[in-house]
Amino acid sequence: MASMAAFIAVIAPNSLPSISNPLRPQLPARLRLAPPPPVPFAVGKGRSTALRRAAAASCSLIQPDGGTLVDLVAREGPAREALRRDAARCPQIKLSRIDLEWLHVLSEGWASPLCGFMREAEFLQTLHFNCLRLGDGSIVNMSVPIVLAIDDAQKRAIGDRRRIALVDARDKPVAILSDIEIYKHNKEERIARTWGTTAPGLPYVEEAITNAGNWLIGGDLEVIERIKYNDGLDKYRLSPAELREEFSRRNADAVFAFQLRNPVHNGHALLMTDTRRRLLEMGYKNPILLLHPLGGYTKADDVPLHWRMKQHEKVLEDGVLNPETTVVAIFPSPMHYAGPTEVQWHAKSRINAGANFYIVGRDPAGMSHPIEKRDLYDADHGKKVLSMAPGLERLNILPFKVAAYDKKQKKMAFFDPSRHQDFLFISGTKMRTLAKNRENPPDGFMCPGGWDVLVEYYDSVAPQGANKFREAVPA
Amino acid sequence: MASMAAFIAVIAPNSLPSISNPLRPQLPARLRLAPPPPVPFAVGKGRSTALRRAAAASCSLIQPDGGTLVDLVAREGPAREALRRDAARCPQIKLSRIDLEWLHVLSEGWASPLCGFMREAEFLQTLHFNCLRLGDGSIVNMSVPIVLAIDDAQKRAIGDRRRIALVDARDKPVAILSDIEIYKHNKEERIARTWGTTAPGLPYVEEAITNAGNWLIGGDLEVIERIKYNDGLDKYRLSPAELREEFSRRNADAVFAFQLRNPVHNGHALLMTDTRRRLLEMGYKNPILLLHPLGGYTKADDVPLHWRMKQHEKVLEDGVLNPETTVVAIFPSPMHYAGPTEVQWHAKSRINAGANFYIVGRDPAGMSHPIEKRDLYDADHGKKVLSMAPGLERLNILPFKVAAYDKKQKKMAFFDPSRHQDFLFISGTKMRTLAKNRENPPDGFMCPGGWDVLVEYYDSVAPQGANKFREAVPA
Repeated sequence: MASMAAFIAVIAPNSLPSISNPLRPQLPARLRLAPPPPVPFAVGKGRSTALRRAAAASCSLIQPDGGTLVDLVAREGPAREALRRDAARCPQIKLSRIDLEWLHVLSEGWASPLCGFMREAEFLQTLHFNCLRLGDGSIVNMSVPIVLAIDDAQKRAIGDRRRIALVDARDKPVAILSDIEIYKHNKEERIARTWGTTAPGLPYVEEAITNAGNWLIGGDLEVIERIKYNDGLDKYRLSPAELREEFSRRNADAVFAFQLRNPVHNGHALLMTDTRRRLLEMGYKNPILLLHPLGGYTKADDVPLHWRMKQHEKVLEDGVLNPETTVVAIFPSPMHYAGPTEVQWHAKSRINAGANFYIVGRDPAGMSHPIEKRDLYDADHGKKVLSMAPGLERLNILPFKVAAYDKKQKKMAFFDPSRHQDFLFISGTKMRTLAKNRENPPDGFMCPGGWDVLVEYYDSVAPQGANKFREAVPA
Repeated sequence: MASMAAFIAVIAPNSLPSISNPLRPQLPARLRLAPPPPVPFAVGKGRSTALRRAAAASCSLIQPDGGTLVDLVAREGPAREALRRDAARCPQIKLSRIDLEWLHVLSEGWASPLCGFMREAEFLQTLHFNCLRLGDGSIVNMSVPIVLAIDDAQKRAIGDRRRIALVDARDKPVAILSDIEIYKHNKEERIARTWGTTAPGLPYVEEAITNAGNWLIGGDLEVIERIKYNDGLDKYRLSPAELREEFSRRNADAVFAFQLRNPVHNGHALLMTDTRRRLLEMGYKNPILLLHPLGGYTKADDVPLHWRMKQHEKVLEDGVLNPETTVVAIFPSPMHYAGPTEVQWHAKSRINAGANFYIVGRDPAGMSHPIEKRDLYDADHGKKVLSMAPGLERLNILPFKVAAYDKKQKKMAFFDPSRHQDFLFISGTKMRTLAKNRENPPDGFMCPGGWDVLVEYYDSVAPQGANKFREAVPA
């Protein structure tokens, strides 16, 4: 489930580089690093190619999906101004916060080679196959629908227009969607095929689907200017092109991505430093860690982004991770909590940002079943599905086994079943309970600066003097 | 929906050979007929290869998936007797009728290259990707889970044994399943990802999943002898190898498959004869029709197999279809009613039987939503999904447009919107109502011999003198 338990788990020394998969040949990691042949076709009808520019990626980094990193943001100058004037003349559709996050994702090429919100052919392939076939017959992974819903009145207002303007909450035009296609939004089928359940209470569904319109509108996007949130964190929102430039600047010969949406503790740090050590052992000269917290929509009981970023900053300040070999950036995607389906998206988008190694934990993107007393997904399905996913063959999957707090060594360590009595499993619930009660975790669980941020966060949501938070489940 | 309306629809003269698909290059049909390079690896752990024999297929027919047609039936003689003795010593699992139908399907290679009930890696790939990756990296389509459920007591009884015997309803050993793997049967997830809904009332789910065990058992199958049902119809149950032999014997240079589970009327016949005409125009010398009614489990209100076969026999006797260029055989698979997911299985299995053209109608394998007043699937999604499905690139998809009864010509004809008032749409409901009430359809709708069979069937289920069946929906 989506608890910190999933994070108190570190790569086992002997499990690198790939999990067992009887249907996929076990290639040594280095053999899978060769860049694929360039694929000249991009998804989409290709009528707005002016805005799609190849990133200045180093040739030593993994190629983006489709061969070219999509960039849908208009260049400053006449092109941008023309777009802005055009937007004023088009029918307008207002974007929700989550819509805007997806637009952000699309605009910078995280979903390359997608060039806009999905048309029906892309939506159906995503739902049924978790991948898209390109014009040359090659396959890219695409597991999560990136779609824009409109209602009956909006559909009527668009009529037979072929271009529409997308505007933000304050009616400011953000983008043009052209060569549009409107098709039915079968919510039940979308939910069932994406989450493997239709039980009420899925956070993303309640937030973004249940009350959304009964139509989806796809098309090619032209984004007027770069998406900013002005929340003090934009400096962390590096685009895939900027990340690639940074990795090249650092002369990275391997990039390993760590997706997270929780505070970082020393179990994570152990995992990340151990992964670097093993990559060095394998012969890489300069493996760089992409510590990549998810920055879009998360459910109400997750720690908000700006608190997490504050905590991550402390972890780096405290020297738990080496800033020389670590890039911290925000991944702008919203969170689906769709387990094995979503982990493919988390991995695929990081290929586009230049990562050729992806660390996958227990039950990635999982959560409790919304109405039954069990986890929604089998804890092992995420890494199994990821290892077999079409279009992710180029990515080296790094699974990791459980680690825990070693009471003897007073630090986070690989779990050793032969002396299991020495280990303490600190669940996410336990960690949150400690922080809410302003109690300290065992020494060595998290750097003190990072822990203070967590305590401060829980103080800010539960006023001082309130009853002590009681943990429902024993640790 | 799963009505006869789907069948009163014929191929439009200008829609052959392929529907529009922006992501797939539109190759002329002939270009897609080249046999693919042979693929040497079969799915499965490959420890029971003795039983897997290549079919004596003509090299002019399309290659089976994986390059080799799977045949899991033991040869008569010592091998078969050894298997029989072995079965007596193994833990036994009793098969339901549907389990036996799937075993039949597997045994003859309809699901090539699958060599037994799915292990978890195959199950997960089927649910998430509708395809399987083979050892050489190539892809075959596989959209419907072919799995065997066991309950807790059966799992305990198997213990750590690696081989089990599968027995029929009368405890007669049918097969050995070896190198077994037992894994969790998450029914909700299986249903959601296969049907795109979890609404109660899905026929296959209620029949075969809801009360099934909470575990699935996969492994390699060795089948003791050919599956027979002794219902007078076994002569129609040709295996893929036998069909390939028959097509070769007839010197077929194209084989076009027509899947059905309803009586044949003259709209179907028009479609089939017109398809042959067009294939001849394209330069084929001898296109053969595989008229291929589904013979496994169907829902209660479908016409039972033996009545359908009787009706099909009449249609051939009456000369509506040419026996020289038509092969009528039974497809042993059970029916899922899983729309776009299932139509891929219907197409893929026919590749294995030698068909390189597949006729797809409106809403294939669809039905009404079990609890809402609408069709479960979008009527166009079946052909769209089929045209984009991984592993089916070699198959030529033949979609067809609506046809109807032309009151002026007094026969089934392509629907001409410019004189729509001349056409009568005879829905499946309408047809059933007429037959139940012993009324005749318009002249030219179905051959009289075939119609008499239908009337006879409805007489047999609704005794004479019963109230006239009233149609709920106007025709």
